[in-house]
Amino acid sequence: MDFSSKLLENAVNEVSQLPGIGKRTALRLVLHLLRQPKEQTGYLTRALDNLVTDIKLCKNCYNISDVELCEICSSHKRDETTICVVEDVRDVMAIENTAQFQGMYHVLGGKISPMEGIGPNNLQIESLVDKVKAGKVKELVFALSSTMEGDTTNFYIYKQVKDLDIKISAIARGISVGDELEYADEVTLGRSILNRIPFENSLRQ
Amino acid sequence: MDFSSKLLENAVNEVSQLPGIGKRTALRLVLHLLRQPKEQTGYLTRALDNLVTDIKLCKNCYNISDVELCEICSSHKRDETTICVVEDVRDVMAIENTAQFQGMYHVLGGKISPMEGIGPNNLQIESLVDKVKAGKVKELVFALSSTMEGDTTNFYIYKQVKDLDIKISAIARGISVGDELEYADEVTLGRSILNRIPFENSLRQ
Repeated sequence: MDFSSKLLENAVNEVSQLPGIGKRTALRLVLHLLRQPKEQTGYLTRALDNLVTDIKLCKNCYNISDVELCEICSSHKRDETTICVVEDVRDVMAIENTAQFQGMYHVLGGKISPMEGIGPNNLQIESLVDKVKAGKVKELVFALSSTMEGDTTNFYIYKQVKDLDIKISAIARGISVGDELEYADEVTLGRSILNRIPFENSLRQ
Repeated sequence: MDFSSKLLENAVNEVSQLPGIGKRTALRLVLHLLRQPKEQTGYLTRALDNLVTDIKLCKNCYNISDVELCEICSSHKRDETTICVVEDVRDVMAIENTAQFQGMYHVLGGKISPMEGIGPNNLQIESLVDKVKAGKVKELVFALSSTMEGDTTNFYIYKQVKDLDIKISAIARGISVGDELEYADEVTLGRSILNRIPFENSLRQ
């Protein structure tokens, strides 16, 4: 692309560094900002600058937080003995939205992925194992995405805690509520059948 | 969405103001920035801030430019008597890429669109008419997109310059080079037939 302005070119290049945003989309976004009042861009850039400079991770669960100990970890209503292991803040938000989980979280910050150069030491795995060894925890719930990387990460943690006296579970995989059986993939349907539950339990909302 | 951090929430809200970016995509982009080194976000926000504060419009063609008179307007190789009327900088870039146009541009900054509250006075139409009235211009080439708004804008300008002694043309509409006739829409194919050209001309690259 041949730009008529270096300023425009710089802005487009920086925006197109974001994942899933190519040069054309970047140009569209930047031209949108130019059509808005200047303050609008100021709000955007200040919000981003403040975020990356002031953001903290909760010192207990490593979730993104504005304070040292996040809202969930500092709540007295949560069950400290059950810990749900998730990948990032989006998973915490998704599970909190269901209002079905009363325990605590432990945010790994990713999955083990040799292809992307992410090893166990880049994640909050040691702190999780330490937490379990401290003795308060009774159950660990794995809630990573069911991909190769997710399974690897689950298994890596499992090996380190399996001899400790805790229950280790994983969230159920199966057909989505409301889905038609004929359109489900075989692996998911297979798991649904293998991990079938007493009918009375399926009546719970 | 329930965010664990006000800083995160602010950043996501600001990013999701951009066109075509919803809350989920905004969260994904913001989390990407958090995983990058802080400087990366600094480059992005500085590029955007510099753009909106320092950007200039060329005083002749109103294209985005770093200097008072853009490269095209200050070039001695361009034909000052032919002016191509376009909507924004993207159209200038697209036409320059073809290397088929040696004249100058006039960037309107949009199209007349009552629905979006854009009237003739929000666009660089008066300056275009003044330029034509000054007498140097021999041909005006309309290259707005062929939508209702584009046609309205073309016609609005046409009415004001049609009595002046200039040639007024519009870029050709027709089947794309390499396209199959059977997949073309009727309106485009119809225009291709109505505006057919001497066969010898079609041999030019």
